Amino acid sequence: MLRNVKRLLIGNPLPSQRAKHERLILPLALAVLASDALSSVAYGPEQILLILTQGNQDALFLILPVALAIAALIWVVIFSYRQLLQVYPHGGGSYSVAKENLGVFLGFLAGAALSLDYVLTVAVSLAAGAAAIYSAWPDLHVNRVEVTLVILLFMALMNLRGIRESGWTFGSPTYLFIGSMFILLGVGFWKLIAGVSAAASPDVLTVTHSLDWFLILKAFSSGATTVTGIEAISNGVAIFRDPQDQNARKSLLWLGILLAIMLLGMVYLTQHVGLSPKPDETLLSQLGRWALGGSLLYYVLQLSTFLVLFLAANAAFSGFPQLAAVVAKDGYLPRQFRNRGDRLVYSNGIVGLAFLAGVLIYLFGAETDRLIPLYAIGVFTAFTLSQLGMAVYHNRHRQSGWRMRAALGVVGGLLTGIVALIFAVTKFTEGAWIVVILIPLMMLIPYTVHAHYTATARQLSLKGERNLPRKQPVVAVVPVNAIHRGTLKAIRYAESISPEVHVVHIGIDAEETQRMKENLERWCPDVKLEVLPSPYHSFLQVFNEYVESLQQSHPGVFLTVVVPEFVPKRPIQQLLHNQTALLLKLQLYGKEGVIVVNVPYHLKV
Amino acid sequence: MLRNVKRLLIGNPLPSQRAKHERLILPLALAVLASDALSSVAYGPEQILLILTQGNQDALFLILPVALAIAALIWVVIFSYRQLLQVYPHGGGSYSVAKENLGVFLGFLAGAALSLDYVLTVAVSLAAGAAAIYSAWPDLHVNRVEVTLVILLFMALMNLRGIRESGWTFGSPTYLFIGSMFILLGVGFWKLIAGVSAAASPDVLTVTHSLDWFLILKAFSSGATTVTGIEAISNGVAIFRDPQDQNARKSLLWLGILLAIMLLGMVYLTQHVGLSPKPDETLLSQLGRWALGGSLLYYVLQLSTFLVLFLAANAAFSGFPQLAAVVAKDGYLPRQFRNRGDRLVYSNGIVGLAFLAGVLIYLFGAETDRLIPLYAIGVFTAFTLSQLGMAVYHNRHRQSGWRMRAALGVVGGLLTGIVALIFAVTKFTEGAWIVVILIPLMMLIPYTVHAHYTATARQLSLKGERNLPRKQPVVAVVPVNAIHRGTLKAIRYAESISPEVHVVHIGIDAEETQRMKENLERWCPDVKLEVLPSPYHSFLQVFNEYVESLQQSHPGVFLTVVVPEFVPKRPIQQLLHNQTALLLKLQLYGKEGVIVVNVPYHLKV
Repeated sequence: MLRNVKRLLIGNPLPSQRAKHERLILPLALAVLASDALSSVAYGPEQILLILTQGNQDALFLILPVALAIAALIWVVIFSYRQLLQVYPHGGGSYSVAKENLGVFLGFLAGAALSLDYVLTVAVSLAAGAAAIYSAWPDLHVNRVEVTLVILLFMALMNLRGIRESGWTFGSPTYLFIGSMFILLGVGFWKLIAGVSAAASPDVLTVTHSLDWFLILKAFSSGATTVTGIEAISNGVAIFRDPQDQNARKSLLWLGILLAIMLLGMVYLTQHVGLSPKPDETLLSQLGRWALGGSLLYYVLQLSTFLVLFLAANAAFSGFPQLAAVVAKDGYLPRQFRNRGDRLVYSNGIVGLAFLAGVLIYLFGAETDRLIPLYAIGVFTAFTLSQLGMAVYHNRHRQSGWRMRAALGVVGGLLTGIVALIFAVTKFTEGAWIVVILIPLMMLIPYTVHAHYTATARQLSLKGERNLPRKQPVVAVVPVNAIHRGTLKAIRYAESISPEVHVVHIGIDAEETQRMKENLERWCPDVKLEVLPSPYHSFLQVFNEYVESLQQSHPGVFLTVVVPEFVPKRPIQQLLHNQTALLLKLQLYGKEGVIVVNVPYHLKV
Repeated sequence: MLRNVKRLLIGNPLPSQRAKHERLILPLALAVLASDALSSVAYGPEQILLILTQGNQDALFLILPVALAIAALIWVVIFSYRQLLQVYPHGGGSYSVAKENLGVFLGFLAGAALSLDYVLTVAVSLAAGAAAIYSAWPDLHVNRVEVTLVILLFMALMNLRGIRESGWTFGSPTYLFIGSMFILLGVGFWKLIAGVSAAASPDVLTVTHSLDWFLILKAFSSGATTVTGIEAISNGVAIFRDPQDQNARKSLLWLGILLAIMLLGMVYLTQHVGLSPKPDETLLSQLGRWALGGSLLYYVLQLSTFLVLFLAANAAFSGFPQLAAVVAKDGYLPRQFRNRGDRLVYSNGIVGLAFLAGVLIYLFGAETDRLIPLYAIGVFTAFTLSQLGMAVYHNRHRQSGWRMRAALGVVGGLLTGIVALIFAVTKFTEGAWIVVILIPLMMLIPYTVHAHYTATARQLSLKGERNLPRKQPVVAVVPVNAIHRGTLKAIRYAESISPEVHVVHIGIDAEETQRMKENLERWCPDVKLEVLPSPYHSFLQVFNEYVESLQQSHPGVFLTVVVPEFVPKRPIQQLLHNQTALLLKLQLYGKEGVIVVNVPYHLKV
């Protein structure tokens, strides 16, 4: 039954050889990989404004300078990834680059930071996607958390089925979003030039912060969430047509251009229209309503925003399981992350990511603003480490132009590192402290896991070739509470595998014991019933002591406990029987040197 | 660890021979057994008033006649139980009496009705006990459900520890309650005669029902909950000193006198003081406040009410598990109800009762008024059946005076039957429908259980003595994914129990397979590696098909699957390993003719 439900949700198993990618032409590949980066326009600019409006009215003029600084940051990251692709033309995650060039410790730091950020990408993107929807259809606002969780569940199932990253399905929403954004910006600037006034007068601000450097840096770091997602292109090199690295580098340029235009355009319009953040409508939606009115175009904008955010979250569902599989392959994460499911996807990584993202969404009420302080530290840490890794690489290999490239790596790394630091400090009390605590804790995982695997491999190894297991005589013990077809089958089995069989019974009722003795003598004359006295009702303890005494008197044998058990026709009927066999198995499970056999007797009715 | 928690909560195991009762002198035995019956005074009279106040002011004069009718009913039940004790001097529950004299079907009806009422006794008594407390200390009103559930949990643990029904601990609260009630009634009547007016003027009634027979009958049936608990004396005969039956019969008389005085006294005072039910204070507490003021005596009254209700609920914790054990002994309930735990109590019955009562308390918000419509139908059904059973008994045995006794049984039975019917009809829409549906459904349980046990016993029986299990050759299959100490131990074990060993591997990686072949040849030259091709990743299915083909080619053998498994030092480390062994066991569990052996390899680190 369970299997059928699984089939229905996940689909039939796929043969192993079908695990390969289709390759896409540049514009399509760009669209597929850019959703993560572009979608951050949906919440990044709003975050700048959200912080600046905590200052006085004067603070608002800072929005454009802050946005310009972020655009500059975008280009730093774009250039350093272009550098990276020259060295690692097949793409390379921060984890691999850092581990290779900076050592295991910093590799783990990058891995932990990235993992946390994958989880937050899912949570933030889905929350922002939900916000796009309820901005357009306010009635849906009520059950935000539930709606977001249902979408997450759907996404997890979709990924467990194994979606093929078909170019058109994944590329078209991105182009739809880009198109809507350009129409929005075009109409917006036209209206601005034509002198159409703002639809709504800006709300009077409640000043909660004085305008100081802290506020400006905070606004900057909030807006820096727009930079997230650029790394997706270098991780996804595999889907580009040849020459892969060149196409990927071109894509990065295009991505930088698109991202800068959208960010700056949106911020400029926002400032000049005089919009301010509202709790129940996103800034992008307000801008859309102002520019496009209630027209169809506005709804297309909102829907495409949702779709591109959905794809951004979905990108994490291919990124995280792959990262986990790579780390697991190195022996630093539980090896279950390497298991491909029936549908050839890394099911455990998918389930794990969905679970963690679900917890975050639930805890933070699916509110983007509350999730943002946790976000982006990981991304900027990973940026920093991969750029410093590149610097070390160039310093080591000293190919032509290495000085320039190493310097670029150091500068870029320091810059993004400073952003991470600004983020951690300015957002510390609002949630960044969680990340600051979590990342070091997460770094303990790979060390613990690796230590266990090494210890296991050493113990299982056949290199020290003495004391190897040998054939040994078998001694069988059969605990019985009555003589019937079920226990008789178990006794016969014990006789079949062993020349020495002990049939034991815990005596509580003398009369019953006598009857059993006679019965056993009649059906199995070669074995004797051994009766163990039990002053207490707990028979498990008495049996345990008996087994231990046998172990002592029979060293060097395979001591085998043969447990008779009947299997009812319907599992529910199991409830009508004492679970002695189960308890016995649990009790003996941890016992060294004891082997447990279940002899099932199948009931027909 | 779990075991230690259990020890702490439940205590150490007790030796089996300590399962016997201490015997008590009459006044003490009466007190121990009467708590259930007497405690119903705490809610019964209030229920009458609650219904009558739905009519107009005129309806209130009916409270005394209704109470008189209930007092008469009490005496009918008292007399019929005195009759019953003459025939069953060692006591007998309705289930046994009905089953013996009226047949299995009506026996099950009595059993189902009684079981349901035990659950309701717990729920109603605890809810009413909580009400007694928060009437005196209104601050505790807020978390009523939680407080009641915590008390229930405490009671269940106490019973799992096995309380000895020590006379003084259990008897003194009853006497304290009786004493407080008599002081209340004494002071009350003195004040009434002295002409002290009511403390509070009665509220103006909102008339929601016209005064008709339906309302009167409804009030009567609500008040009839006062009759519950009388059967406890006949169930508890064992604790009386000899001559047991005579002492028990005397106790019944005393109980009837006490119950009648308390009920009528309370009702008379209530009517003449002009009190009416309030949602946040019980009637008894109102009466107490009026008569005793804020004196210590008032708080003693409330506390003793709580204690006596607590004991009433506790009585169900010895009644239900015993009933379940008796029915299970007859083969009509899962035999786990017969298991005595470490502390010699019927643990499963206790846990089951606590769980069901907890569900009821939670669903009905721990409100007595809402639970009452479900209560008492069961008790009156059981009364009816045991009295009709007595009538049949006398008609069969025809001892001296049998006509008179049989007639009394029939009349008593009809009377209580009519009460049950009135209850079911007048309370139908308020919750009695649940009971009317539940009881027949519960009656299906014994039939289903018995059918399964009979079928099982028939299949396990050795009477048809052909086709008995015989010694058979053993064929062993060892699935391996690598050659190491763990799998080698499993292969050696397979070689030790069987001359024919198949070591199989699901081939996914050709290179790995080749390495395994060489390794196996080196360490175990007598066995060959069989490689099964797997087009899919799911190795379970491939292995399953292999086992099936072996079954077909080797009929009449004990086919044994030897599963290598390593046991890490700490259970948590299990998470770092693939759960292949577990999945394999689950897969093979339902498979007829296959025996599964686990060969554990214990890791040291």
